[in-house]
Amino acid sequence: MADSIDALRTRVNNFVEEREWAQFHSPKNLAMAMIVEAAEVVEHFQWMTEADSRQLDQATKEKVGHELADTFVYLMRIAEVCGIDLIAAANAKIDLNAQKYPVDKCKGSNAKYTEYQ
Amino acid sequence: MADSIDALRTRVNNFVEEREWAQFHSPKNLAMAMIVEAAEVVEHFQWMTEADSRQLDQATKEKVGHELADTFVYLMRIAEVCGIDLIAAANAKIDLNAQKYPVDKCKGSNAKYTEYQ
Amino acid sequence: MADSIDALRTRVNNFVEEREWAQFHSPKNLAMAMIVEAAEVVEHFQWMTEADSRQLDQATKEKVGHELADTFVYLMRIAEVCGIDLIAAANAKIDLNAQKYPVDKCKGSNAKYTEYQ
Amino acid sequence: MADSIDALRTRVNNFVEEREWAQFHSPKNLAMAMIVEAAEVVEHFQWMTEADSRQLDQATKEKVGHELADTFVYLMRIAEVCGIDLIAAANAKIDLNAQKYPVDKCKGSNAKYTEYQ
Repeated sequence: MADSIDALRTRVNNFVEEREWAQFHSPKNLAMAMIVEAAEVVEHFQWMTEADSRQLDQATKEKVGHELADTFVYLMRIAEVCGIDLIAAANAKIDLNAQKYPVDKCKGSNAKYTEYQ
Repeated sequence: MADSIDALRTRVNNFVEEREWAQFHSPKNLAMAMIVEAAEVVEHFQWMTEADSRQLDQATKEKVGHELADTFVYLMRIAEVCGIDLIAAANAKIDLNAQKYPVDKCKGSNAKYTEYQ
Repeated sequence: MADSIDALRTRVNNFVEEREWAQFHSPKNLAMAMIVEAAEVVEHFQWMTEADSRQLDQATKEKVGHELADTFVYLMRIAEVCGIDLIAAANAKIDLNAQKYPVDKCKGSNAKYTEYQ
Repeated sequence: MADSIDALRTRVNNFVEEREWAQFHSPKNLAMAMIVEAAEVVEHFQWMTEADSRQLDQATKEKVGHELADTFVYLMRIAEVCGIDLIAAANAKIDLNAQKYPVDKCKGSNAKYTEYQ
Protein backbone atom coordinates (compact mmCIF):
# COMPACT_ATOMS: atom_id res chain seq x y z
CA MET A 1 0.00 0.00 0.00
CA ALA A 2 1.21 3.45 -0.99
CA ASP A 3 0.75 5.72 2.02
CA SER A 4 1.46 9.12 0.47
CA ILE A 5 0.56 10.82 -2.77
CA ASP A 6 4.14 10.38 -4.00
CA ALA A 7 4.11 6.67 -3.28
CA LEU A 8 0.70 6.42 -4.93
CA ARG A 9 1.92 8.25 -8.00
CA THR A 10 4.81 5.82 -8.32
CA ARG A 11 2.45 2.89 -7.91
CA VAL A 12 0.14 4.22 -10.63
CA ASN A 13 3.02 4.91 -12.98
CA ASN A 14 4.37 1.40 -12.51
CA PHE A 15 0.91 -0.02 -13.16
CA VAL A 16 0.76 1.86 -16.47
CA GLU A 17 4.29 0.98 -17.53
CA GLU A 18 3.90 -2.75 -16.82
CA ARG A 19 0.91 -2.77 -19.18
CA GLU A 20 2.59 -0.53 -21.79
CA TRP A 21 -0.35 1.83 -21.60
CA ALA A 22 1.62 5.09 -21.74
CA GLN A 23 1.14 5.10 -25.51
CA PHE A 24 -2.62 5.63 -24.92
CA HIS A 25 -2.11 8.16 -22.14
CA SER A 26 -2.05 11.40 -24.06
CA PRO A 27 -3.41 14.30 -21.96
CA LYS A 28 -6.34 14.46 -24.41
CA ASN A 29 -7.30 10.82 -23.80
CA LEU A 30 -6.67 11.03 -20.06
CA ALA A 31 -8.89 14.12 -19.76
CA MET A 32 -11.67 12.11 -21.40
CA ALA A 33 -11.09 9.16 -19.08
CA MET A 34 -11.07 11.45 -16.03
CA ILE A 35 -14.40 13.10 -16.85
CA VAL A 36 -15.96 9.69 -17.53
CA GLU A 37 -14.96 8.65 -13.99
CA ALA A 38 -16.14 11.97 -12.55
CA ALA A 39 -19.51 11.27 -14.19
CA GLU A 40 -19.66 7.92 -12.40
CA VAL A 41 -19.36 9.87 -9.15
CA VAL A 42 -22.15 12.20 -10.33
CA GLU A 43 -24.33 9.23 -11.28
CA HIS A 44 -24.52 8.09 -7.65
CA PHE A 45 -26.03 11.41 -6.64
CA GLN A 46 -28.22 12.38 -9.57
CA TRP A 47 -31.60 11.29 -8.13
CA MET A 48 -30.61 11.71 -4.49
CA THR A 49 -31.61 14.71 -2.42
CA GLU A 50 -28.76 16.78 -1.04
CA ALA A 51 -29.70 15.62 2.44
CA ASP A 52 -29.52 11.95 1.44
CA SER A 53 -26.17 12.53 -0.27
CA ARG A 54 -24.83 13.57 3.14
CA GLN A 55 -25.88 10.25 4.69
CA LEU A 56 -24.62 7.49 2.44
CA ASP A 57 -25.05 3.91 3.49
CA GLN A 58 -21.87 1.82 3.69
CA ALA A 59 -22.34 0.09 0.32
CA THR A 60 -22.86 3.35 -1.57
CA LYS A 61 -19.96 4.99 0.27
CA GLU A 62 -17.70 2.20 -0.90
CA LYS A 63 -18.87 2.55 -4.50
CA VAL A 64 -18.40 6.30 -4.41
CA GLY A 65 -14.90 5.67 -3.02
CA HIS A 66 -14.10 3.51 -6.05
CA GLU A 67 -15.26 6.16 -8.51
CA LEU A 68 -13.37 8.89 -6.64
CA ALA A 69 -10.29 6.67 -6.76
CA ASP A 70 -10.58 6.23 -10.52
CA THR A 71 -11.02 9.96 -11.00
CA PHE A 72 -8.00 10.59 -8.77
CA VAL A 73 -5.82 8.12 -10.64
CA TYR A 74 -6.52 9.80 -14.01
CA LEU A 75 -6.02 13.22 -12.42
CA MET A 76 -2.58 12.11 -11.23
CA ARG A 77 -1.79 10.68 -14.65
CA ILE A 78 -2.66 13.94 -16.42
CA ALA A 79 -0.43 15.83 -14.00
CA GLU A 80 2.32 13.26 -14.54
CA VAL A 81 2.18 13.33 -18.32
CA CYS A 82 1.99 17.15 -18.44
CA GLY A 83 4.81 17.57 -15.93
CA ILE A 84 2.59 19.32 -13.39
CA ASP A 85 3.22 19.05 -9.63
CA LEU A 86 -0.31 18.48 -8.38
CA ILE A 87 0.30 19.54 -4.79
CA ALA A 88 2.08 22.71 -5.88
CA ALA A 89 -0.65 23.48 -8.42
CA ALA A 90 -3.33 23.03 -5.77
CA ASN A 91 -1.51 25.36 -3.37
CA ALA A 92 -1.08 27.98 -6.10
CA LYS A 93 -4.78 27.78 -7.01
CA ILE A 94 -5.85 28.10 -3.39
CA ASP A 95 -3.69 31.22 -3.13
CA LEU A 96 -5.56 32.65 -6.14
CA ASN A 97 -8.92 31.63 -4.73
CA ALA A 98 -8.13 33.34 -1.44
CA GLN A 99 -7.78 36.59 -3.41
CA LYS A 100 -10.89 36.00 -5.50
CA TYR A 101 -13.00 35.05 -2.50
CA PRO A 102 -12.02 37.26 0.47
CA VAL A 103 -13.50 35.95 3.71
CA ASP A 104 -15.28 39.18 4.62
CA LYS A 105 -17.17 39.28 1.32
CA CYS A 106 -17.92 35.59 0.85
CA LYS A 107 -18.87 34.37 4.27
CA GLY A 108 -21.95 32.19 3.99
CA SER A 109 -22.56 33.15 0.37
CA ASN A 110 -22.54 30.84 -2.63
CA ALA A 111 -22.35 33.69 -5.18
CA LYS A 112 -19.76 33.37 -7.90
CA TYR A 113 -16.73 35.58 -7.47
CA THR A 114 -17.63 37.63 -10.55
CA GLU A 115 -20.46 39.08 -8.49
CA TYR A 116 -17.95 40.64 -6.07
CA GLN A 117 -16.00 42.49 -8.70
CA MET B 1 2.33 25.97 1.39
CA ALA B 2 0.95 22.54 2.19
CA ASP B 3 3.53 19.95 1.14
CA SER B 4 1.55 16.74 1.51
CA ILE B 5 -1.97 15.64 0.70
CA ASP B 6 -2.84 15.72 4.41
CA ALA B 7 -1.57 19.25 4.80
CA LEU B 8 -3.41 20.23 1.63
CA ARG B 9 -6.61 18.68 2.86
CA THR B 10 -6.36 20.65 6.08
CA ARG B 11 -5.72 23.83 4.12
CA VAL B 12 -8.76 23.23 1.91
CA ASN B 13 -10.97 22.45 4.89
CA ASN B 14 -9.88 25.63 6.65
CA PHE B 15 -10.57 27.62 3.49
CA VAL B 16 -14.11 26.26 3.41
CA GLU B 17 -14.78 26.75 7.09
CA GLU B 18 -13.55 30.34 7.16
CA ARG B 19 -16.10 31.14 4.43
CA GLU B 20 -18.88 29.06 6.03
CA TRP B 21 -19.27 27.15 2.80
CA ALA B 22 -19.72 23.68 4.32
CA GLN B 23 -23.49 24.26 4.17
CA PHE B 24 -23.26 24.21 0.35
CA HIS B 25 -20.85 21.27 0.25
CA SER B 26 -23.21 18.34 0.05
CA PRO B 27 -21.68 15.42 -1.89
CA LYS B 28 -24.34 16.03 -4.55
CA ASN B 29 -23.28 19.65 -5.08
CA LEU B 30 -19.57 18.84 -4.84
CA ALA B 31 -19.89 16.11 -7.47
CA MET B 32 -21.42 18.71 -9.79
CA ALA B 33 -18.65 21.20 -9.02
CA MET B 34 -15.98 18.54 -9.61
CA ILE B 35 -17.29 17.54 -13.02
CA VAL B 36 -17.56 21.18 -14.05
CA GLU B 37 -13.85 21.58 -13.26
CA ALA B 38 -13.01 18.31 -15.01
CA ALA B 39 -14.77 19.72 -18.07
CA GLU B 40 -12.52 22.78 -17.92
CA VAL B 41 -9.59 20.38 -18.21
CA VAL B 42 -11.29 18.68 -21.17
CA GLU B 43 -11.95 22.06 -22.82
CA HIS B 44 -8.22 22.70 -23.19
CA PHE B 45 -7.83 19.52 -25.23
CA GLN B 46 -11.05 19.30 -27.26
CA TRP B 47 -9.70 20.69 -30.55
CA MET B 48 -6.09 19.62 -29.99
CA THR B 49 -4.57 16.56 -31.59
CA GLU B 50 -3.32 13.92 -29.19
CA ALA B 51 0.22 14.72 -30.29
CA ASP B 52 -0.21 18.43 -29.51
CA SER B 53 -1.73 17.57 -26.14
CA ARG B 54 1.58 15.90 -25.28
CA GLN B 55 3.53 19.09 -26.01
CA LEU B 56 1.81 21.92 -24.18
CA ASP B 57 3.36 25.37 -24.21
CA GLN B 58 4.09 26.89 -20.82
CA ALA B 59 0.99 29.11 -20.73
CA THR B 60 -1.39 26.25 -21.50
CA LYS B 61 0.38 23.98 -19.04
CA GLU B 62 -0.18 26.53 -16.31
CA LYS B 63 -3.88 26.87 -17.17
CA VAL B 64 -4.30 23.09 -17.23
CA GLY B 65 -2.59 23.01 -13.83
CA HIS B 66 -5.19 25.42 -12.45
CA GLU B 67 -8.09 23.32 -13.72
CA LEU B 68 -6.52 20.11 -12.41
CA ALA B 69 -6.07 21.84 -9.07
CA ASP B 70 -9.74 22.84 -8.94
CA THR B 71 -10.80 19.30 -9.83
CA PHE B 72 -8.48 17.93 -7.16
CA VAL B 73 -9.80 20.29 -4.49
CA TYR B 74 -13.41 19.20 -5.09
CA LEU B 75 -12.31 15.57 -5.20
CA MET B 76 -10.70 15.99 -1.78
CA ARG B 77 -13.82 17.73 -0.49
CA ILE B 78 -16.11 14.90 -1.61
CA ALA B 79 -13.83 12.39 0.10
CA GLU B 80 -13.79 14.58 3.21
CA VAL B 81 -17.54 15.05 3.42
CA CYS B 82 -18.24 11.35 2.72
CA GLY B 83 -15.61 10.18 5.21
CA ILE B 84 -13.53 8.45 2.55
CA ASP B 85 -9.74 8.12 2.84
CA LEU B 86 -8.69 9.02 -0.68
CA ILE B 87 -5.25 7.41 -0.56
CA ALA B 88 -6.65 4.18 0.88
CA ALA B 89 -9.49 4.18 -1.69
CA ALA B 90 -7.00 4.64 -4.52
CA ASN B 91 -4.86 1.78 -3.28
CA ALA B 92 -7.89 -0.48 -2.94
CA LYS B 93 -9.02 0.40 -6.47
CA ILE B 94 -5.58 -0.26 -7.93
CA ASP B 95 -5.64 -3.67 -6.24
CA LEU B 96 -8.95 -4.38 -7.99
CA ASN B 97 -7.67 -3.06 -11.30
CA ALA B 98 -4.62 -5.30 -11.09
CA GLN B 99 -7.03 -8.27 -10.99
CA LYS B 100 -9.22 -6.94 -13.79
CA TYR B 101 -6.27 -6.13 -16.01
CA PRO B 102 -3.61 -8.85 -15.61
CA VAL B 103 -0.32 -7.79 -17.19
CA ASP B 104 -0.03 -10.81 -19.47
CA LYS B 105 -3.43 -10.18 -21.04
CA CYS B 106 -3.41 -6.39 -21.24
CA LYS B 107 0.08 -5.50 -22.32
CA GLY B 108 -0.12 -2.88 -25.04
CA SER B 109 -3.89 -3.23 -25.44
CA ASN B 110 -6.50 -0.57 -24.83
CA ALA B 111 -9.41 -3.02 -24.80
CA LYS B 112 -11.86 -2.69 -21.96
CA TYR B 113 -11.54 -5.37 -19.29
CA THR B 114 -14.94 -6.84 -20.19
CA GLU B 115 -13.32 -8.10 -23.36
CA TYR B 116 -10.99 -10.35 -21.36
CA GLN B 117 -13.74 -12.13 -19.50
CA MET C 1 -34.83 30.70 -38.48
CA ALA C 2 -34.91 26.91 -38.79
CA ASP C 3 -38.29 25.73 -37.48
CA SER C 4 -37.73 21.98 -37.36
CA ILE C 5 -34.88 19.73 -36.29
CA ASP C 6 -34.13 18.94 -39.97
CA ALA C 7 -33.93 22.61 -40.89
CA LEU C 8 -31.77 23.21 -37.81
CA ARG C 9 -29.46 20.37 -38.75
CA THR C 10 -29.01 21.86 -42.21
CA ARG C 11 -28.33 25.27 -40.70
CA VAL C 12 -25.69 23.82 -38.35
CA ASN C 13 -24.04 21.85 -41.13
CA ASN C 14 -23.85 24.95 -43.34
CA PHE C 15 -22.36 26.92 -40.46
CA VAL C 16 -19.63 24.31 -40.08
CA GLU C 17 -18.93 24.01 -43.81
CA GLU C 18 -18.65 27.74 -44.38
CA ARG C 19 -15.94 27.84 -41.74
CA GLU C 20 -14.23 24.65 -42.94
CA TRP C 21 -14.52 23.20 -39.47
CA ALA C 22 -15.50 19.66 -40.50
CA GLN C 23 -11.81 18.75 -40.32
CA PHE C 24 -11.91 19.30 -36.52
CA HIS C 25 -15.26 17.57 -36.09
CA SER C 26 -14.21 14.01 -35.43
CA PRO C 27 -16.71 12.20 -33.17
CA LYS C 28 -13.95 12.10 -30.54
CA ASN C 29 -13.52 15.87 -30.55
CA LEU C 30 -17.25 16.54 -30.77
CA ALA C 31 -17.94 14.29 -27.79
CA MET C 32 -15.45 16.37 -25.79
CA ALA C 33 -17.06 19.61 -26.96
CA MET C 34 -20.53 18.30 -26.09
CA ILE C 35 -19.63 17.34 -22.54
CA VAL C 36 -17.93 20.70 -22.00
CA GLU C 37 -21.21 22.40 -22.95
CA ALA C 38 -23.21 19.97 -20.80
CA ALA C 39 -20.95 20.99 -17.89
CA GLU C 40 -21.86 24.63 -18.51
CA VAL C 41 -25.48 23.62 -17.99
CA VAL C 42 -24.50 21.82 -14.78
CA GLU C 43 -22.54 24.86 -13.58
CA HIS C 44 -25.71 26.95 -13.41
CA PHE C 45 -27.25 24.48 -10.97
CA GLN C 46 -24.32 23.30 -8.86
CA TRP C 47 -24.93 25.51 -5.82
CA MET C 48 -28.67 25.88 -6.31
CA THR C 49 -31.22 23.87 -4.36
CA GLU C 50 -33.47 21.64 -6.43
CA ALA C 51 -36.40 23.89 -5.54
CA ASP C 52 -34.57 27.00 -6.79
CA SER C 53 -33.59 25.19 -9.99
CA ARG C 54 -37.32 24.83 -10.70
CA GLN C 55 -37.85 28.59 -10.45
CA LEU C 56 -35.23 30.27 -12.60
CA ASP C 57 -35.30 34.00 -13.08
CA GLN C 58 -35.51 35.23 -16.68
CA ALA C 59 -31.78 36.03 -16.98
CA THR C 60 -30.67 32.60 -15.76
CA LYS C 61 -33.25 30.89 -17.93
CA GLU C 62 -31.81 32.63 -20.97
CA LYS C 63 -28.26 31.61 -20.05
CA VAL C 64 -29.33 28.01 -19.49
CA GLY C 65 -31.03 28.15 -22.89
CA HIS C 66 -27.73 29.15 -24.50
CA GLU C 67 -25.85 26.28 -22.89
CA LEU C 68 -28.56 23.79 -23.78
CA ALA C 69 -28.40 25.08 -27.36
CA ASP C 70 -24.65 24.56 -27.51
CA THR C 71 -25.01 21.05 -26.12
CA PHE C 72 -27.76 20.34 -28.65
CA VAL C 73 -25.70 21.61 -31.57
CA TYR C 74 -22.77 19.31 -30.73
CA LEU C 75 -25.20 16.43 -30.15
CA MET C 76 -26.59 16.97 -33.65
CA ARG C 77 -23.08 17.19 -35.07
CA ILE C 78 -22.04 13.86 -33.52
CA ALA C 79 -25.17 12.22 -34.95
CA GLU C 80 -24.44 13.82 -38.32
CA VAL C 81 -20.82 12.76 -38.49
CA CYS C 82 -21.59 9.22 -37.27
CA GLY C 83 -24.53 8.84 -39.66
CA ILE C 84 -27.05 8.42 -36.84
CA ASP C 85 -30.68 9.56 -37.20
CA LEU C 86 -31.21 11.26 -33.86
CA ILE C 87 -35.00 11.11 -33.86
CA ALA C 88 -34.99 7.42 -34.79
CA ALA C 89 -32.31 6.68 -32.18
CA ALA C 90 -34.35 8.45 -29.51
CA ASN C 91 -37.47 6.50 -30.42
CA ALA C 92 -35.57 3.22 -30.35
CA LYS C 93 -34.09 4.06 -26.94
CA ILE C 94 -37.47 4.99 -25.51
CA ASP C 95 -38.79 1.63 -26.72
CA LEU C 96 -35.98 -0.07 -24.79
CA ASN C 97 -36.55 2.07 -21.72
CA ALA C 98 -40.24 1.19 -21.74
CA GLN C 99 -39.19 -2.46 -21.36
CA LYS C 100 -36.57 -1.73 -18.73
CA TYR C 101 -38.90 0.46 -16.71
CA PRO C 102 -42.42 -1.03 -16.81
CA VAL C 103 -44.99 1.43 -15.48
CA ASP C 104 -46.39 -0.90 -12.82
CA LYS C 105 -42.97 -1.45 -11.24
CA CYS C 106 -41.50 2.04 -11.56
CA LYS C 107 -44.34 4.36 -10.72
CA GLY C 108 -43.07 7.03 -8.37
CA SER C 109 -39.74 5.29 -7.83
CA ASN C 110 -36.29 6.63 -8.71
CA ALA C 111 -34.58 3.25 -8.32
CA LYS C 112 -32.29 2.20 -11.12
CA TYR C 113 -33.70 -0.46 -13.42
CA THR C 114 -31.13 -3.02 -12.26
CA GLU C 115 -33.01 -3.13 -8.98
CA TYR C 116 -36.07 -4.53 -10.75
CA GLN C 117 -34.31 -7.46 -12.30
CA MET D 1 -42.75 6.34 -33.54
CA ALA D 2 -42.50 10.08 -33.10
CA ASP D 3 -41.28 11.56 -36.36
CA SER D 4 -40.55 15.15 -35.31
CA ILE D 5 -38.97 16.78 -32.28
CA ASP D 6 -42.42 17.95 -31.11
CA ALA D 7 -43.84 14.44 -31.31
CA LEU D 8 -40.75 13.11 -29.55
CA ARG D 9 -41.08 15.68 -26.80
CA THR D 10 -44.67 14.63 -26.24
CA ARG D 11 -43.65 10.99 -26.17
CA VAL D 12 -40.94 11.67 -23.59
CA ASN D 13 -43.26 13.76 -21.44
CA ASN D 14 -45.87 11.00 -21.47
CA PHE D 15 -43.22 8.45 -20.53
CA VAL D 16 -42.26 10.54 -17.51
CA GLU D 17 -45.83 11.26 -16.45
CA GLU D 18 -46.94 7.63 -16.63
CA ARG D 19 -44.14 6.76 -14.22
CA GLU D 20 -44.73 9.80 -11.97
CA TRP D 21 -41.10 10.79 -12.39
CA ALA D 22 -41.66 14.53 -12.77
CA GLN D 23 -41.10 14.83 -9.01
CA PHE D 24 -37.43 13.79 -9.56
CA HIS D 25 -36.99 15.92 -12.67
CA SER D 26 -35.74 19.17 -11.22
CA PRO D 27 -33.43 20.99 -13.64
CA LYS D 28 -30.61 20.32 -11.16
CA ASN D 29 -31.15 16.55 -11.25
CA LEU D 30 -31.74 16.48 -15.00
CA ALA D 31 -28.52 18.39 -15.65
CA MET D 32 -26.68 15.70 -13.66
CA ALA D 33 -28.43 12.93 -15.59
CA MET D 34 -27.64 14.62 -18.91
CA ILE D 35 -23.92 14.93 -18.21
CA VAL D 36 -23.77 11.31 -17.06
CA GLU D 37 -25.19 10.27 -20.44
CA ALA D 38 -22.87 12.65 -22.28
CA ALA D 39 -19.99 10.92 -20.48
CA GLU D 40 -21.20 7.57 -21.80
CA VAL D 41 -20.80 9.03 -25.28
CA VAL D 42 -17.29 10.20 -24.36
CA GLU D 43 -16.42 6.78 -22.96
CA HIS D 44 -16.80 5.19 -26.39
CA PHE D 45 -14.15 7.49 -27.80
CA GLN D 46 -11.65 7.92 -24.96
CA TRP D 47 -9.03 5.44 -26.16
CA MET D 48 -9.85 5.71 -29.85
CA THR D 49 -7.84 7.77 -32.26
CA GLU D 50 -9.69 10.58 -33.99
CA ALA D 51 -9.38 8.69 -37.26
CA ASP D 52 -10.94 5.55 -35.77
CA SER D 53 -13.74 7.61 -34.26
CA ARG D 54 -14.67 8.62 -37.82
CA GLN D 55 -15.03 4.98 -38.87
CA LEU D 56 -17.22 3.23 -36.31
CA ASP D 57 -18.26 -0.34 -36.86
CA GLN D 58 -22.00 -1.01 -36.87
CA ALA D 59 -22.13 -2.30 -33.28
CA THR D 60 -20.33 0.71 -31.84
CA LYS D 61 -22.40 3.08 -33.94
CA GLU D 62 -25.55 1.58 -32.45
CA LYS D 63 -24.23 1.92 -28.91
CA VAL D 64 -23.21 5.51 -29.53
CA GLY D 65 -26.72 6.09 -30.91
CA HIS D 66 -28.22 4.85 -27.64
CA GLU D 67 -26.06 7.16 -25.54
CA LEU D 68 -26.78 10.13 -27.80
CA ALA D 69 -30.48 9.32 -27.48
CA ASP D 70 -30.27 9.31 -23.68
CA THR D 71 -28.41 12.62 -23.70
CA PHE D 72 -31.00 14.07 -26.07
CA VAL D 73 -33.92 12.91 -23.93
CA TYR D 74 -32.54 14.61 -20.83
CA LEU D 75 -31.71 17.71 -22.87
CA MET D 76 -35.34 17.88 -24.00
CA ARG D 77 -36.52 17.33 -20.44
CA ILE D 78 -34.42 20.22 -19.10
CA ALA D 79 -35.81 22.47 -21.82
CA GLU D 80 -39.33 21.27 -21.00
CA VAL D 81 -39.06 21.79 -17.27
CA CYS D 82 -37.39 25.20 -17.65
CA GLY D 83 -39.92 26.35 -20.27
CA ILE D 84 -37.25 26.75 -22.96
CA ASP D 85 -38.05 26.24 -26.66
CA LEU D 86 -35.04 24.18 -27.74
CA ILE D 87 -35.29 24.89 -31.46
CA ALA D 88 -35.67 28.63 -30.86
CA ALA D 89 -32.79 28.60 -28.36
CA ALA D 90 -30.57 26.80 -30.87
CA ASN D 91 -31.39 29.31 -33.60
CA ALA D 92 -30.71 32.23 -31.28
CA LYS D 93 -27.37 30.72 -30.24
CA ILE D 94 -26.33 30.11 -33.85
CA ASP D 95 -27.14 33.77 -34.58
CA LEU D 96 -24.78 34.75 -31.75
CA ASN D 97 -22.10 32.32 -32.89
CA ALA D 98 -22.26 33.74 -36.41
CA GLN D 99 -21.29 37.11 -34.91
CA LYS D 100 -18.58 35.64 -32.68
CA TYR D 101 -17.09 33.57 -35.48
CA PRO D 102 -17.23 35.55 -38.74
CA VAL D 103 -16.46 33.35 -41.72
CA ASP D 104 -13.60 35.49 -43.04
CA LYS D 105 -11.72 35.31 -39.73
CA CYS D 106 -12.43 31.71 -38.74
CA LYS D 107 -12.14 29.74 -41.93
CA GLY D 108 -10.13 26.61 -41.28
CA SER D 109 -9.10 27.74 -37.79
CA ASN D 110 -9.94 26.04 -34.51
CA ALA D 111 -8.92 29.04 -32.39
CA LYS D 112 -11.37 30.12 -29.72
CA TYR D 113 -13.33 33.27 -30.54
CA THR D 114 -11.61 35.22 -27.77
CA GLU D 115 -8.50 35.15 -29.92
CA TYR D 116 -10.27 37.21 -32.59
CA GLN D 117 -11.25 40.05 -30.31
